[in-house]
Formats: sequence, structure tokens, C-alpha cells
Amino acid sequence: MPSYRAPVEDVTFLLNDVFHFDRYNNLPGFADASSDVRDAIISEAAKFSEEVLQPLNRVGDLEGCVRHDDGRVTTPKGFKEAFRQLSEGGWLGLSGAPEYGGQGLPVTLSQTINEFMISANMAFSMYHGLTLGAVAALMAHGTEEQKAKFVPKMTAGQWAGTMNLTEPHCGTDLGLLRTKAVKQADGSYKITGTKIFISGGDQDITENIIHLVLARIEGAPAGVKGISLFVVPKVQINADGSLGERNGVSCGSIEHKMGIHGNSTCVMNYDNATGWLLGAENKGLNAMFVMMNEARLGVGVQGLAQSEVAYQNAVAYARERLQGRSLSGVKAPDKPADPIIVHPDVRRTLLTIRAFNEAARALVVWTALKSDVAHRSDDAKERQEADDHMGLLTPVIKGVLTDVGFANSVSAQQMFGGHGYIAEWGMEQFVRDARIAMIYEGANGIQALDLVGRKLPKDGGRAVMALFNEIGSFTKDHTDEAMKPYLAPLSEALGHLQQATMWLMQNAMGKPENAGAASTDYMHLFGLVIMGYMWARMVKVAHDKIAAGDSAPYLKTKLVTGKFFMERMLPETAAHLARLQTGAATVMELPAEAF
Amino acid sequence: MPSYRAPVEDVTFLLNDVFHFDRYNNLPGFADASSDVRDAIISEAAKFSEEVLQPLNRVGDLEGCVRHDDGRVTTPKGFKEAFRQLSEGGWLGLSGAPEYGGQGLPVTLSQTINEFMISANMAFSMYHGLTLGAVAALMAHGTEEQKAKFVPKMTAGQWAGTMNLTEPHCGTDLGLLRTKAVKQADGSYKITGTKIFISGGDQDITENIIHLVLARIEGAPAGVKGISLFVVPKVQINADGSLGERNGVSCGSIEHKMGIHGNSTCVMNYDNATGWLLGAENKGLNAMFVMMNEARLGVGVQGLAQSEVAYQNAVAYARERLQGRSLSGVKAPDKPADPIIVHPDVRRTLLTIRAFNEAARALVVWTALKSDVAHRSDDAKERQEADDHMGLLTPVIKGVLTDVGFANSVSAQQMFGGHGYIAEWGMEQFVRDARIAMIYEGANGIQALDLVGRKLPKDGGRAVMALFNEIGSFTKDHTDEAMKPYLAPLSEALGHLQQATMWLMQNAMGKPENAGAASTDYMHLFGLVIMGYMWARMVKVAHDKIAAGDSAPYLKTKLVTGKFFMERMLPETAAHLARLQTGAATVMELPAEAF
Repeated sequence: MPSYRAPVEDVTFLLNDVFHFDRYNNLPGFADASSDVRDAIISEAAKFSEEVLQPLNRVGDLEGCVRHDDGRVTTPKGFKEAFRQLSEGGWLGLSGAPEYGGQGLPVTLSQTINEFMISANMAFSMYHGLTLGAVAALMAHGTEEQKAKFVPKMTAGQWAGTMNLTEPHCGTDLGLLRTKAVKQADGSYKITGTKIFISGGDQDITENIIHLVLARIEGAPAGVKGISLFVVPKVQINADGSLGERNGVSCGSIEHKMGIHGNSTCVMNYDNATGWLLGAENKGLNAMFVMMNEARLGVGVQGLAQSEVAYQNAVAYARERLQGRSLSGVKAPDKPADPIIVHPDVRRTLLTIRAFNEAARALVVWTALKSDVAHRSDDAKERQEADDHMGLLTPVIKGVLTDVGFANSVSAQQMFGGHGYIAEWGMEQFVRDARIAMIYEGANGIQALDLVGRKLPKDGGRAVMALFNEIGSFTKDHTDEAMKPYLAPLSEALGHLQQATMWLMQNAMGKPENAGAASTDYMHLFGLVIMGYMWARMVKVAHDKIAAGDSAPYLKTKLVTGKFFMERMLPETAAHLARLQTGAATVMELPAEAF
Repeated sequence: MPSYRAPVEDVTFLLNDVFHFDRYNNLPGFADASSDVRDAIISEAAKFSEEVLQPLNRVGDLEGCVRHDDGRVTTPKGFKEAFRQLSEGGWLGLSGAPEYGGQGLPVTLSQTINEFMISANMAFSMYHGLTLGAVAALMAHGTEEQKAKFVPKMTAGQWAGTMNLTEPHCGTDLGLLRTKAVKQADGSYKITGTKIFISGGDQDITENIIHLVLARIEGAPAGVKGISLFVVPKVQINADGSLGERNGVSCGSIEHKMGIHGNSTCVMNYDNATGWLLGAENKGLNAMFVMMNEARLGVGVQGLAQSEVAYQNAVAYARERLQGRSLSGVKAPDKPADPIIVHPDVRRTLLTIRAFNEAARALVVWTALKSDVAHRSDDAKERQEADDHMGLLTPVIKGVLTDVGFANSVSAQQMFGGHGYIAEWGMEQFVRDARIAMIYEGANGIQALDLVGRKLPKDGGRAVMALFNEIGSFTKDHTDEAMKPYLAPLSEALGHLQQATMWLMQNAMGKPENAGAASTDYMHLFGLVIMGYMWARMVKVAHDKIAAGDSAPYLKTKLVTGKFFMERMLPETAAHLARLQTGAATVMELPAEAF
């Protein structure tokens, strides 16, 4: 059976030493999250994840969710009770607005512990993840009345939230959607249509579910300009806030999926359901994007989280499994064979995963800090810079962390040999669960297009230029010998990314298919460089602490893992550059029927 | 629901035009496989795969195999009848020895159609695949009596075969195995022990199962030098060949696996089961390797086969799914959106899979021809060269074709967006089924070690030198302008492989951990170069045929797909070289507890 230990030491190193959390005490909420408070919260979150959520992970996979003949949906045994504990522990409201029941603590903190919960139980964590996404959309676009009506109860975990975008014939291209909304005399709308792939669409863990639903108001323009966003509660809410009658929305069936069986993925039927407009008429896509951007970061964390838990279990197995002897001589003479962690190829595999995990975690913490700055700073320039960072890095984090997170789960599974293919060992569940993160909230090909087509050229490339400057300065500012093995490869990789960016500027304006053909390679090249920068920053701190006399073994591990990243992972940047520079000609040459 | 069409046109191009099958008419069996006969066999195999096996693929996944309380194992509905048709069609005996009921046709032909059957139904094809592996071991090591007793009935599909190697505590390191054999007065042995992961260990499709079992004879030396191979029938066989009593072997349970649910993967309990020695005492590993080498090629084909069927379904979906508009302007103005195959990133993904599939198929056909030469030529030098080729390429084919085949199944699934994650679309089954091929018959890390540690240095590097010469000559012999865009990148990639080989010679002799740390990158670098060579040969033929007036669209597609391979896939060789040249130092630096 798999196990999980939250990476508390690594998270603390990032918050305290690398990103200097305490320097942000001028921002609202940060002063409340003093070092002691942070440690307590992190340690409680670790405990809750390890002891409550993780033991339910396999149960969730085996039992799955069931839709009964009467239309009720039940979740796996233990999920409801765990959600109660989650709610009562205040975890849903950690970074929520204090005026609506939240604790107002930094997103940096909640995003950090979010990784723990997803590692422990990804399917479970989607119930509250989507609830918080819906809260974000309500906070950004809701009226005061809507906020007061929904947000406190969602923050308390009494009600959950969902996102309803996809229909059978449209996912990526939401302009095609058909669900219709008819305005009523009282200002409400009647919503009718079918939505698919609705995570947590129905369940038995909360007394109500607040669906956010994209639909087209009768007579609205065609395409994306005629889409509005609606709030549609599962159970109608009386004027006094008590629950009324069931609304005209129900789960038609539960999808049979490759993984995340513990989450109920529903086909939702809206049949004259009563809904209220959220935000402006025909501006639904903008409103939904608030929710989606939050969600994309969260999905990136899912990639990291599955990679982390798969890594931990692969390491444990590699330390215990006796098979063969070390190439450099017997290491465990008292045993019939050496543990497989003596083998270089096993170590190479494990270090590949670890070097990614730690850089990805740093990237998430750094970006979460930017999110706090963007939302909480009173300095407009600071806010803009942070916002630029988030816009640019959101598709990279979603696309790269989930692609690589999945690949890492597969590599970790491989360490188990045949046992990795057997369900009871739990490794194949990590692979099946991790797979969805590459698909939902915008398939990774869409993330890559968003990066090259929208985020890169936005504001004349302001965001990317700022980032290049920051990384370039870092490589120039640290000229000591000890940093050279790290900064020389990083400079070279940054050069590749700059060349690729230049190539896009020169070749993709007039011929957008060159951008399309380059997009996935560009996104992964970007990911490698930004993770290389994270490594450089972590290594610098580790070096300084060692020089100052800190002898924690953890710091030495950082230096070696960072070196591994530079030696073994960064060389891929040249291949990405070479590939994308070949352009779209060959890709576009064949007619569709030749494929 | 997924569909499948056997790649008959591509196979015919390879056999006839690229590898000149008819030039081997001097070898036994080849003259019987004239062009007409081949076409008939290929077309019948295609039909059988498409119409009988493919429709059972999803049934097999959903139903799986069941062990009943009385110990009987049943396979999914339809499997038994399909196996009857397979047997009656003579498919098991296609390349079998005529003196034991086979048809004596070239392995090249049976390996070619093997791909069709695996694409159509991988779990099903394992029942006969392993039977043929057992036949190969019996033919190589059995006495005349053993051959006569077992082979004809296995060739006829009346009895099946299995391989029993793995035990709970040992897979890769067979020296640790504990199953014991006690010699009896009549020359038989009593076998006792537990074997796990036994594919087709029990089933209801054949009246008997011939288990080949590795065990240790009482008093045998420790380690791999004390392992013997035994034949243990499920049902004892009377002197007249009729079936007698049940032997002391039974299925204890069926594993719950990630995929290949249609194949019964059993824990097998041997309890004083009667067995007979196959080959010499304590030479069991050698005997088993005959079977394993055949099996490794077959497993490589599984990687290709899943990649092919996943590709076909992704293409069909990409042609039909309407979503978004082309970056270069609307392509289907009469429709609400363009089919997604207009998007460069979709095409890049599809071409990546296709360019691999066609090169991998060429590699399999080429290597199967070498297998025929190795077994059937009367020229000792020819046999040796063919044997060298097979020894060198077997780990590459197993490791690379299954790693990339799996990755391609994942990419094909990605084309479906959310639908790819839903079981009824069938794409996630391809991924789950393809996953096992990276693990069994020697996990891919072991293939990479076999390549760098054994196959490369064998006979002073004779095999690899011959291969480098052949590819080098090809690039030098074809100097026409049309071949330049193909041969220039191939030469560069070959240079990387030669540098990597030189690096291993200089750095791995004294420090074998450098070989271990380099092995996986070396194997994939090798795979890219050899597939690049396959592309160069296919492109040359396509060019020649076009120059001679052949206007088949298929030939143009070959040229473009080959160009894609050179532009987009070969650049990876430089990254592999850079990585492996960093050596083992960083990989070996940390103590096990630091991971």
C-alpha cells in the first residue's frame, strides 16, 4: 500500500529561505501568517493529508461514485466524513475573504498545502478545489447579495461549487455551446441543456451544490460573444437562506473514467432550472476565465502532487527491493542481493523526478506569491508586474507540470517492475489519476497556444522581457565559482529560449501556423528554463547556508539534485529549439486524408 | 468505439519494395511465400484481426478474467471461440516446423501479421504469443520425444504454453528464485513453489496448458547457475497422448492489473507438480533465454501495435471533431467549426506517432528477416551476421518500441480531449494495455543495460561496427540532392551515436556505473538512429518509385513523414549524447537515505 509524507522541510525552505515570505508583511494577511503560525498550519495540513485523506485514496479508486436509480449520487466510503473534517478545520476558508467567513491568509500558504492534499488524495481534493474556484468567480463577478448568499456557506464547506462548461459537441471551442437561458419576469433565467464532464456534479457530501453554468441567453449573438454565466443551485434557496425545493438540475449519469474514480464526473441535465446571471450578459466567458485561471494553477499543482507521491513510494521501494548487485561491488553482503537504489539507472530515474518536483514546487510557491501581490498590493506597478508574471506562467505551469508530472508517475511506477502494474501497489492509480490533469481546464495543446499566441505578445512582450531580464541578471550577478556549474547551463538554456522567442517574433506574425507548430516545444523549453532558474535560486541559498555553517544534509541534497537538473534535464532545451525552428511547412504539407 | 484497419499497404511496401522479400528465395520456406501467397495471407490476417479480434478488445477489458471458487478460470466472452478460429485458420503454425504440424513459412511473415493481431486485441494475442514462445523453447531444447509430445498440439492451438519465471521476491534477479524440483525414480521431478505474473496461467480456451517453469533442483548451486527449466503440463498426459489426471498446479488468484484484463495473469501454485527437465540440468536460464528473446521482439511489436491502433483512432477523431478555426483562415465554411486536424499542433502530434510507427514497423520486418536468415541460411557467415544483428537490436526493439509506443498511445488519447479519459471511447484502454510492455520480459532499464553491458562489447563490438558501417555506407552511397535533407541529419545523428559509443568504451570499462548511468539515453539514441536509417531506406525507395512514374499518394506521404522524422525527432540525439556524457558522478553522489 502506498504511503505519503508531506514535504514540510522543502516547503519551509522555499517560504522562509528562498522566497522570504516575511518580506511581504506589508501585504494584508501576511503579518497574520508569522513563522510560527505558518509552521503550525503546515504541520496540521500535513497531518490531515497523511492521516485522513491518504488512507481514503485507494478506497476512492476501488469504490468510485455511484448514481442510484433514484438519481442520488453517493461518494466512496469515508469521503463525506473527511469533507466534514476539512470544513470544520477551516481549510476551505484559509485564504478566503474575512468578510465572507474566510481567514484572509495568503494564497501562498493555501496553495502550498494544496499540494499536500492532492498528493494524499487527488479525487477528493477536487471537491473543495472546484468549490474554491466557484467562490473566486462569485467574488470577482457576483453582486453583494450573491456574495453574501453563497460565499460564506461555500467557505464553510456546507455547500460545494462546480464549473459547467463542456457540452458533448464542444469543449475547447465554447462558442459552439447550446445550453439556453430564458429570462423570466422576476429577473431569473430558466436554463436548459446538457453539460458533460462535470466534476462533483452531484454528490452526497454537501447539502447543496452551487453550479456555475455557461449558457446562451435567447437572442444572444452567436459564438463566444453570446455566452453568459449563471449561478444555478442544486437546491433552491429561500429568502431566509434556508433550503427550498430541488431545482431542475440532475445528474443523468456518471462517466466511467480512466482514473479519479473518487470524484463524481457527471453528465448534468438542466431542465428549466432556475438560475441567476453572474456578471454581465454575454460576458460569461470572461467571468469563467477568472475561475479557470485559478483552476489552471491548481491543475498544475495536481501534476506536481502526483509526481511527488509517486516519487516517495518509488524511493521507498527502491530502498527495500533486493535485486541484483551493484555494478561497483556488493553493497549489502549480509543480504541475498543489494537494494535496487544502488543501480545508476534507478537513481537517474529517481533524480529526474525529484529534480522536477522541487523546481516545480518552487515555481508554484513563487507564482502564488505573485498572486498575493497582484491581489493585495497597494502599489499599482507591483500589481501589474505580478499580474504579468501570473498571466505568462499560468499556461506553463498547467502544461508543463501536468505533462511532466504524468511522465514522472509513469517512471515511478516503472521502478516497481511487474508490481507497478498491479492495482494493490497503488502506483498505477497515480498514473491513471495524473493523466486527467493533462486534459482538463484546457488540454495542454491549448495551454501552449495560449502561451505563444496570447501571453507572449501581450503588451508588446512586456511580461516575457521582464522575466528574461530577471533570469539574465541573476546569472550575471552571481559570479562565484561555486555557482558556475549551475549558471553556465542556465545561461545557455536561457539563450535557447530567447532564440526561440525571437524566431517566433520573426516567423509567426505573418504565418500563425509557425506559432502553432512551435507551441508545445516552446512551452516545454520555457518550462525547463524557468525551472532551471528556480534551481539556481535554491542552490544559491543552499550554498550560502552551508557557507554559514548549516550542516543539514538536506542542503547538500539540494546542491546535487540541482546539478543533476543542469546536467541531465536542461540539455533538452537545444532539442526543443531545433525542432521548433523547422517551422510548420512539413507539418502542414499533407492533406487530411493522407494521415 | 475504436476501430482498426491493418496497415496492409505499408507492410506490402516494406516486404516487396524496401526489403525485397523475393531475394531470399534460396532460404527454406521463402519460395512457398510467393507474392500472391503473401498477399492472400496478409489480407486474411487483416480480416481476422479487424473482424474477429478487434470487436472483442473492449469486451475483454470490461469483463476481464475470473477465477471461480472451484479454481476454474474463465476468459471473457468470445475469447474461446476466437481462439478456435485462430487455431483452425492455422495461424499458430504459420512459421512452425513442418515436421511438427507447422507450415514452415518465414518468421518475417508471421511477425508482420502478429502486429495486426496485437493492434486488434493485445490481451487476446498474448495467449498464442506465449504458446509460440514455449514452442520455440521446446524446439530449441526439447528431446525428440518432448517435441513430438507437445509441439504439434500447441501448434494446432489445442494446448497453450506459458512462461513461469517470476516469484514474489524475484523478477529481474532470477538467481534468487526458490521454487524447488525434487528428482523422482522415473526421471520426472516434483515441482513446488509459487510463481507470480503468469500470463495465461490458467484459462478455459485450451484443453491443456504446457507450463515452462524455472526451478532449482535439490542440491543445485546457488544463484543463476543452479536453475533448471521444466515442462509441467496442467493436465497430465497419458502414454497414448490422451489427457490424464490434473497435475499439482493451480491458479491461486488472478492479479488485478492496470490493463490487459482479457489476459488471465495468475499467481500459480506448484504443489508437488510433476515436471520434466527441458534441456540440461542447471542450464535453465539459457533455455529460457531462447524463449525470452523471441518474446522480447514480440513485446516490442506490442509497443508498435498499440501505437498504431491508437494513431488510427486519433486520426479518425481529428478528421471529424469540429472545434475552433484554422489559424490560416476558415477551412470548412459550411460547418460550425473546422475539424481539429487543421491545427498544426494536432498534426505535429499525429505525425510524431506516424513517423515512429512506420520506422518501427520497418525495423521489425528487417529484424524478422534477419531472424529467418539466422535460422535458415546455409551460409555460416550470413547466419553469424544475422545473429549479430538480432542480438544487438533485440533490446533496442523491446525497450524503444515499448517506451515510445506507450508515449504515443498517451499522445493519441490526448487528441480526444476529455473523451480520451472516458472508457467507452477506448483510448484509455490502449494506454493501460500498452503500459505493461515497458515492464515485462525484462523491464526497459534492463534492456538498456543488456545493450550497453552485453550486446555492445560482445565479440569486440563486431555487431555494432557492422551496423555503423552499413548506415555510414548508405549515407555516402546516395549523394543525390533529393536524399540530402534526409541523409544529412541521419549522418549527424549517427555521429552522435558513434561518439556515445566511443564515450562508453573510454569511460565504462573501468567504471561500470558510467555505463549504467548512460544506458537508457544510449538505448534511445540508438533507437533514433536505427529508425532514422529505416526512414532513409524507405524514402529512397519512395523517391525511386515516384521518379519511375508511380503516383500513389502513399509515396508522397512517405517522403513528408520521413522529413518530419528527420526534422522533429532526430534532434533528440544530441540531447541524449549530452546527458550520457555527464557520467555517473552526480547520479551516484547521494547516499540512499538522501533520496
